[in-house]
Amino acid sequence: MTAILLISCPDRKGIVAAIATFLYEHGANILHADQHQDSESRLFLMRVEWDLEGFDLDAATFQAKFESIARQFSMTWEVAYSDRTPVLAIFVSSYLHCLADILHRHQTGELSCRIAVVISNHKQAESLARFHNVPFCYTPVTAATKLEVERRQRELLQQHSVNLIVLARYMQILSADFVGHYPRQIINVHHSFLPAFAGGRPYHAAFARGVKLIGSSSHYVTDVLDGGPIIEQDVIRVSHRDQVEDLIQKGRDLERIVLSRAVRWHLDHRILCYGNKTVIFD
Amino acid sequence: MTAILLISCPDRKGIVAAIATFLYEHGANILHADQHQDSESRLFLMRVEWDLEGFDLDAATFQAKFESIARQFSMTWEVAYSDRTPVLAIFVSSYLHCLADILHRHQTGELSCRIAVVISNHKQAESLARFHNVPFCYTPVTAATKLEVERRQRELLQQHSVNLIVLARYMQILSADFVGHYPRQIINVHHSFLPAFAGGRPYHAAFARGVKLIGSSSHYVTDVLDGGPIIEQDVIRVSHRDQVEDLIQKGRDLERIVLSRAVRWHLDHRILCYGNKTVIFD
Amino acid sequence: MTAILLISCPDRKGIVAAIATFLYEHGANILHADQHQDSESRLFLMRVEWDLEGFDLDAATFQAKFESIARQFSMTWEVAYSDRTPVLAIFVSSYLHCLADILHRHQTGELSCRIAVVISNHKQAESLARFHNVPFCYTPVTAATKLEVERRQRELLQQHSVNLIVLARYMQILSADFVGHYPRQIINVHHSFLPAFAGGRPYHAAFARGVKLIGSSSHYVTDVLDGGPIIEQDVIRVSHRDQVEDLIQKGRDLERIVLSRAVRWHLDHRILCYGNKTVIFD
Amino acid sequence: MTAILLISCPDRKGIVAAIATFLYEHGANILHADQHQDSESRLFLMRVEWDLEGFDLDAATFQAKFESIARQFSMTWEVAYSDRTPVLAIFVSSYLHCLADILHRHQTGELSCRIAVVISNHKQAESLARFHNVPFCYTPVTAATKLEVERRQRELLQQHSVNLIVLARYMQILSADFVGHYPRQIINVHHSFLPAFAGGRPYHAAFARGVKLIGSSSHYVTDVLDGGPIIEQDVIRVSHRDQVEDLIQKGRDLERIVLSRAVRWHLDHRILCYGNKTVIFD
Repeated sequence: MTAILLISCPDRKGIVAAIATFLYEHGANILHADQHQDSESRLFLMRVEWDLEGFDLDAATFQAKFESIARQFSMTWEVAYSDRTPVLAIFVSSYLHCLADILHRHQTGELSCRIAVVISNHKQAESLARFHNVPFCYTPVTAATKLEVERRQRELLQQHSVNLIVLARYMQILSADFVGHYPRQIINVHHSFLPAFAGGRPYHAAFARGVKLIGSSSHYVTDVLDGGPIIEQDVIRVSHRDQVEDLIQKGRDLERIVLSRAVRWHLDHRILCYGNKTVIFD
Repeated sequence: MTAILLISCPDRKGIVAAIATFLYEHGANILHADQHQDSESRLFLMRVEWDLEGFDLDAATFQAKFESIARQFSMTWEVAYSDRTPVLAIFVSSYLHCLADILHRHQTGELSCRIAVVISNHKQAESLARFHNVPFCYTPVTAATKLEVERRQRELLQQHSVNLIVLARYMQILSADFVGHYPRQIINVHHSFLPAFAGGRPYHAAFARGVKLIGSSSHYVTDVLDGGPIIEQDVIRVSHRDQVEDLIQKGRDLERIVLSRAVRWHLDHRILCYGNKTVIFD
Repeated sequence: MTAILLISCPDRKGIVAAIATFLYEHGANILHADQHQDSESRLFLMRVEWDLEGFDLDAATFQAKFESIARQFSMTWEVAYSDRTPVLAIFVSSYLHCLADILHRHQTGELSCRIAVVISNHKQAESLARFHNVPFCYTPVTAATKLEVERRQRELLQQHSVNLIVLARYMQILSADFVGHYPRQIINVHHSFLPAFAGGRPYHAAFARGVKLIGSSSHYVTDVLDGGPIIEQDVIRVSHRDQVEDLIQKGRDLERIVLSRAVRWHLDHRILCYGNKTVIFD
Repeated sequence: MTAILLISCPDRKGIVAAIATFLYEHGANILHADQHQDSESRLFLMRVEWDLEGFDLDAATFQAKFESIARQFSMTWEVAYSDRTPVLAIFVSSYLHCLADILHRHQTGELSCRIAVVISNHKQAESLARFHNVPFCYTPVTAATKLEVERRQRELLQQHSVNLIVLARYMQILSADFVGHYPRQIINVHHSFLPAFAGGRPYHAAFARGVKLIGSSSHYVTDVLDGGPIIEQDVIRVSHRDQVEDLIQKGRDLERIVLSRAVRWHLDHRILCYGNKTVIFD
């Protein structure tokens, strides 16, 4: 069992010494530590993971004791414990490749989480969800019912104590209100190399422009459409031989990979946001 | 010695049979042939290269005889002979990495051309050009003198019989008039993954957006800034550890590679433009 | 409905003219044509696909008529018709990621085939196969029963009229006798960048050597272990932060991608073998 | 001006606390710190860089004071100061692309070093070296004179106080004796994706095997041919259209990139060796 501490604060002397000494004095065996100084914004960002065996503070005491160091350095911080399994909800529409990928990776043991529910405005995903023993909730949406549906979806998320929402090619735009309730807890995959081809039908736009590589991006959702902090991107080569359908097919592999990396890094507490960017502690 | 034929025409039955039979009847030994049917625009595009040994038509006769086939299929076509060396002019400003790269590749034998002149609005490139025995022309530009300078540059290009202009990080925008004189004969490198971050300071824009890959694009220059047909693109991974300076440094390698590939493919007559796109016959 | 012709023969003048004229005279509308001259082995290799609408030869007549051209140029050739669906058998052991990937791609419509049977020496794959409505055959193997099991497997393949066998991380080495019955009809994925780390436990070997990229290769199976013609390879970057388990996890994505590409290209009749190599007509 | 400390030692509790506290107490402003725990070999490896402004220990005092911490944790360690410029010698034969690349990068400011001498068994490199104002030493080698030549080369290296030798496609195998004098101070580029195609003519071997990607590797030289710790590797896609000459040409770009990265990381003190592997603190 391990604990993971994520910290960001203004950069100044003595931060590492203070943290390392605190952890050492309480018997922590540090397994990984990674830090980053962003010279432009003068921020110090750190991830440290230690073995709880031999560590003499329980969660409540740690909270209280570490707070005094945190105050001293004006830290924003959070701690996670590996025995508290994160709970996922997956939103999906009618393209199932990302959903199938996440469910399979979960089964393989790649993703340290519980998948509580699959929520969809279509019925195609139902049998796949059931095959993986995940409850499926059908929530059809129209322009008229959107806010009411979102209210119901939020109830579902609360019932299941969800703390990460994965938009696995969910083709509805969530309202600013909905998004506001889950800051940095919603991960989306956009099927273009952002910021190129933001918005709808990016493969068609890429085809029309005649690009030689297509891409895919995973990002946290904010109230700016396709504008949140980018977590991961990848590309694949295309040529004049590829029609739009080929771009869509090649793109599916990219979407699965960039989305699943983002989800895994989030679950492993490897992502720190600052400004509109992410640090990935890999 | 070989000949290379580039053809585009409306797609219909019998084109390949007509061309192949024509070449065969005149004794051509086909070395490479590649064709592409663009199903969306219903275009047929082809590149065919044959050995001139045993071919019984000289350039003038070929022109006349092939024209009758071309008319029958409404072809746009051009033929190139490997013994007519293309002539290059390289435009550069103060960043020399692309220039150095092209000059070195030329020396290595990678580029089948003569480099007639290096033209620059700065003097930094002079010694490098001289080391490679290429004439250097210093043409400083101000807003006031721009049109006059372009007039002089065009004279230089004519004197040297230049048929390909390479903008190797030339930091001036050429006028529509200048560009109009060299359709599909000007290749530029833009230091972003177009269409993302078109315009100036793309590395700064990429840094601000927090992308996880940076790119570079080579393209033919048209009168739409950074909007011409894309020839080649490539990307490299960056992380939060990379500051703007690191992006610039990593980007230099991309710029050299995508520009040199574009130049080589152009010189080898591997590029066909249609609409605002390119076919690369590789 | 289309027909696809794959040809290889000694290179000489007139081949393209003869084929194109033949097809044209019988009303073929060529959709794609791609050819390759291997200058070292002096071989001509070609793939041509045409629309059968308006083509005036049925399969039997085509066979007879084309044979006279084929003889003239000493061609090895085969023709495939898009309405004759290839039949697959998938062999798998206890790692299911490649199997899950192929089944999902098949469902998505990426793979033009019928998956007739999943054959395994373990039982883990059973529920996944059943979920996709594919018959599952459990064929446990020991050193003593191997030949007998292979005999039974071959019966299964015959019953199902299988013409492509996919080894989706099947951890048994097939006998030379078995392999000999399916020349260029067995595709395997090897979890290394061949020829590096051929044989068992390649991720452990890669970790021990400290490589900075790991790879995966798909290839036709011959009687030389991991030595058959390579169809596709890909790599991913690793670092000192990756332990063997991370290599295995990253490698799974590579395995799925290189195997599925190989299967798709085979099904689309895009692969020609010559010597111990492949041409991929993409 | 900065100082960089590279440390490796058996992993145990308190190391980071000890180092961070020591640096903090002496006024260090840490700019970058990166650490790695190798769980298999139970090693702790660290790189820390700090600003010398405000640091109250000079080089000699630091050496003495830090030694007591080092002894306590059984550390292997070294410290580098950014104002002590490393001195390079480049060995080259008749292929000049890597040499040209390094000289150009040095001129661009990418490489923090002084290039003291270019040593070659051929004369082709002379004018290029002179253009960059680097002394050129012609040291032709035969089997009979090899040891004598190496003796003279080592004198040259000593005269120039060289502390990094870069083999930029130097086509001679250095003797174990020579190599033994420069442990982890000789960087070579091998034109294959090691361990595939170790030894001579790797492009020919890759062509014969029909691989779909070719690679290049930079590594420290040990007395095992092509067997030293790998620093960097990269690959590029090839196809049946590529003949051996195309592999060689594509490979040149890889060689330049993997060699230059290795040299830059070495010069920036980003590489730690352990066992036969490297950690790259990027």
